[in-house]
Amino acid sequence: MNESISKIRVRYVETDQMGVVHHSVYLHWMEIGRSDFLRMRGLSYAQLESMGIRMPVIEVWVKYFNPAKYDEEILIKTSLKECDRIKFTFEYEILKDEEKILVKGMTKHVATDNNNKPKRIPYEILKIIGGEIV
Amino acid sequence: MNESISKIRVRYVETDQMGVVHHSVYLHWMEIGRSDFLRMRGLSYAQLESMGIRMPVIEVWVKYFNPAKYDEEILIKTSLKECDRIKFTFEYEILKDEEKILVKGMTKHVATDNNNKPKRIPYEILKIIGGEIV
Amino acid sequence: MNESISKIRVRYVETDQMGVVHHSVYLHWMEIGRSDFLRMRGLSYAQLESMGIRMPVIEVWVKYFNPAKYDEEILIKTSLKECDRIKFTFEYEILKDEEKILVKGMTKHVATDNNNKPKRIPYEILKIIGGEIV
Amino acid sequence: MNESISKIRVRYVETDQMGVVHHSVYLHWMEIGRSDFLRMRGLSYAQLESMGIRMPVIEVWVKYFNPAKYDEEILIKTSLKECDRIKFTFEYEILKDEEKILVKGMTKHVATDNNNKPKRIPYEILKIIGGEIV
Repeated sequence: MNESISKIRVRYVETDQMGVVHHSVYLHWMEIGRSDFLRMRGLSYAQLESMGIRMPVIEVWVKYFNPAKYDEEILIKTSLKECDRIKFTFEYEILKDEEKILVKGMTKHVATDNNNKPKRIPYEILKIIGGEIV
Repeated sequence: MNESISKIRVRYVETDQMGVVHHSVYLHWMEIGRSDFLRMRGLSYAQLESMGIRMPVIEVWVKYFNPAKYDEEILIKTSLKECDRIKFTFEYEILKDEEKILVKGMTKHVATDNNNKPKRIPYEILKIIGGEIV
Repeated sequence: MNESISKIRVRYVETDQMGVVHHSVYLHWMEIGRSDFLRMRGLSYAQLESMGIRMPVIEVWVKYFNPAKYDEEILIKTSLKECDRIKFTFEYEILKDEEKILVKGMTKHVATDNNNKPKRIPYEILKIIGGEIV
Repeated sequence: MNESISKIRVRYVETDQMGVVHHSVYLHWMEIGRSDFLRMRGLSYAQLESMGIRMPVIEVWVKYFNPAKYDEEILIKTSLKECDRIKFTFEYEILKDEEKILVKGMTKHVATDNNNKPKRIPYEILKIIGGEIV
């Protein structure tokens, strides 16, 4: 499986005075998606950090189709599009009501050490994270 | 002038455990940039909302070059790239130390009424917002 | 039952550069607790709002015992301590590892209409929300 | 002077669907108040952290009188009520329109080292932070 699915419920604090979820919140949800994707692979991001590997974001892109509202149940579909020992690209679809697309997004990441210096991740770890696409 | 400059200082809550500002926070700062840009034009976003005009985000793109840290002073440069009566595209450069680029970004917006239905904004308002590029 | 239990997982964005969850985030979690408490009672806060009833916060108190960390699983125990047709007091215990207390908190609320004017809630609704303590 | 004054402008993202600033945001603003208070004293919190001193929050209390709204200019008045080498208590008044009180608040802090272990701060530093009340 190259896709994880996360379920969350919209928090009141995530809305703004337009009456819908603020556009920046979808980046929080994509981050939840990445965490769950890595956990599904068997190596959580918390474990990666404890091994001295970080994956800071170097680029994001999001397109907004429909708004999420308070208390709605949300699905976050996360997939790993590309990866090598230095760079990772994740893609996301965020939906409600099972099939209504709210946003599509993409994040790019670079591997670093705990001092935020670029670093090649070990090949064994790349295989765990990358699965069939490595 | 087709560029506004906003100055802010990084808040502690804006950092994460990587020791730098969380990548989602730059969207908050771009929003400050847009608010200040419109105020510079003479028509604040608060005034637009009270006139029944909203500009929800329909697309964002951000590229991250350097991290911001707690307590640093940040410059947000905002410019309006394209606009017509329905759509607006803003571009941003966020810097510290006067010239070190942290991120470059872009947001696209659509004009709506208070019920989030698409709406053409009056031409007189477009001229105020758009300035020399209309 | 006069206590609801909510389960969440700590998000990366909820941490700060101290390496633990920022103290303001516990207010977000208490809000989740209240939402789940009301849903358990059979009348969600979203439903209350659609009926023209709001419960803005007028006072909060939180005491912090232990920090939450990224990716940990958190329990939020919410109970309704006092209520009448105008005011509500909720209490919270937030824990990890089933029994380690992170924070204890309290929030007070007043009932208002959609214009944030104080309002007595109907007695039938008070009975649903208040349960055995009314 | 035992009081610092900070000025900010309400951000759109700080509002929620009630149309006013979310109650948790006032904790962010009090944190800005503390930062500015320490800077006024001559020793910024960033400097304290670089010296291995942290001041995590162990208790907060906030009472809400009036709501803040998007784009309003806000004053944060911060004063140090009590302090010794281990504990600090700050008090806050947050206002708009120069004199309309939005919230009153209090935060208690304990001094720790970079591993979040309690620590007595050096007496010279206490004198700088505490000023006339030491």
